[in-house]
Amino acid sequence: MATLVRFGVSIPDDLLDKFDVLIAEKGYTNRSEAIRDLIRDRLVEDEWSRSEHEVVGTVTVVYNHEQSDLAQKLTEIQHRQHQLVISALHVHLDQHNCLEVLIVRGRSEEVKKVGELLISTRGVKHGKITMATTGKELE
Amino acid sequence: MATLVRFGVSIPDDLLDKFDVLIAEKGYTNRSEAIRDLIRDRLVEDEWSRSEHEVVGTVTVVYNHEQSDLAQKLTEIQHRQHQLVISALHVHLDQHNCLEVLIVRGRSEEVKKVGELLISTRGVKHGKITMATTGKELE
Amino acid sequence: MATLVRFGVSIPDDLLDKFDVLIAEKGYTNRSEAIRDLIRDRLVEDEWSRSEHEVVGTVTVVYNHEQSDLAQKLTEIQHRQHQLVISALHVHLDQHNCLEVLIVRGRSEEVKKVGELLISTRGVKHGKITMATTGKELE
Amino acid sequence: MATLVRFGVSIPDDLLDKFDVLIAEKGYTNRSEAIRDLIRDRLVEDEWSRSEHEVVGTVTVVYNHEQSDLAQKLTEIQHRQHQLVISALHVHLDQHNCLEVLIVRGRSEEVKKVGELLISTRGVKHGKITMATTGKELE
Repeated sequence: MATLVRFGVSIPDDLLDKFDVLIAEKGYTNRSEAIRDLIRDRLVEDEWSRSEHEVVGTVTVVYNHEQSDLAQKLTEIQHRQHQLVISALHVHLDQHNCLEVLIVRGRSEEVKKVGELLISTRGVKHGKITMATTGKELE
Repeated sequence: MATLVRFGVSIPDDLLDKFDVLIAEKGYTNRSEAIRDLIRDRLVEDEWSRSEHEVVGTVTVVYNHEQSDLAQKLTEIQHRQHQLVISALHVHLDQHNCLEVLIVRGRSEEVKKVGELLISTRGVKHGKITMATTGKELE
Repeated sequence: MATLVRFGVSIPDDLLDKFDVLIAEKGYTNRSEAIRDLIRDRLVEDEWSRSEHEVVGTVTVVYNHEQSDLAQKLTEIQHRQHQLVISALHVHLDQHNCLEVLIVRGRSEEVKKVGELLISTRGVKHGKITMATTGKELE
Repeated sequence: MATLVRFGVSIPDDLLDKFDVLIAEKGYTNRSEAIRDLIRDRLVEDEWSRSEHEVVGTVTVVYNHEQSDLAQKLTEIQHRQHQLVISALHVHLDQHNCLEVLIVRGRSEEVKKVGELLISTRGVKHGKITMATTGKELE
């Protein structure tokens, strides 16, 4: 368990007022929480830029399940890299369209690679890789 | 079902060569597919910039489940907006950390709002809203 | 002149250590300065998302000056919106290629519009709009 | 001078209609030009991700010129890396605030480093690094 410490930030009062307005709009009830979020977001970005670093993220794809073989191709790619794919959630958006979110974990460059492979598969309409974190190093 | 049409793009040969190298690296086997992906990605970004447009996306949060009340607070926020949250997937990252991905659907500004509320909740270590699409308008 | 105030942030020690390492790498000698930068960057993003807000930014375009009429077309677009374009800097990248940076100021939606017009002009190889700020509200 | 070639893209008609609407809004008069811009933007992003690649970009900083020594410190950083800084443009935003845009050229990691140093200097209110291109490889 990490120890909580406290540090001071000196800041012009006008700037702090504006920040307080913005974070209230976003739902923060606590200024420290908003600052910690800015810090953690910056650190997660940095983790993902180092190819060997262990990261967690998601890969989201939208596709038409009627497209021949597509679902099967996507499943095959995932199985070939099964050690990277923790879990998957599938939603039927309408009669034709599916959305699938995979939770992926591994070295940053492996995770990006499998995400790009899924997104580039013919018939996938839209795809995104989202950077998250193992949480371990971000107490 | 949409009708396939074909259009021509004129382009310097050097530029096309470089593009072919890049998309091969990313796993594309087909140039049209890569172009369609660039187009759809640009359109999804535009959908999300219009506050009234129906969008689909994901909200990813990483948090420590031992934090008192946190899981319950996140669940309450989701229930208050249950019509926006289609489904959720939960993964235990380690003894302390959880990752949860929600699939959300609704007007772009509502979806952003509920995402911001979840991410700003005290104790959530990291959060991201990812833009995807209903697929309906992106045959 | 704004008054300096001070506020405290409570944070796990591990997280603070990681942040200190990151900002030292980026050249910060002072933790408050790094926090203020995170805050101001978030506020500038917010200013640009409100279409009526006065913003300052840059538009960067790279083009081949030998392309017939191109330089003239770009100049015409700028003159039609001369009240938005404060100044321009031109650099000869090589025998063929030019880079031009314009400093633009006005309502966020006007500034984006003129940037998009310049970038979409036939023959412009690459263009980007960069969000900066009048500085007035970010003491 | 690059040779122009032509390639065909097959695409659902609905998707093409939507793309045509979007690019007309952005000021494009020509579909090929819009596609080339998507392609070049993707390639520039890739150039910047390779640390050894020669890139061109801009560094934009906003600061209060009354801050003691600040202008001088920024100038010193630039001179120490003078081979990277091609040129600079200075604008007086109001009685207190200045905006400066530098055009920088060099290996991607050097250019990022000098940008980060300038942005992290105490007293710089806001800063951004913008990715552009030498244009050489993007006929």
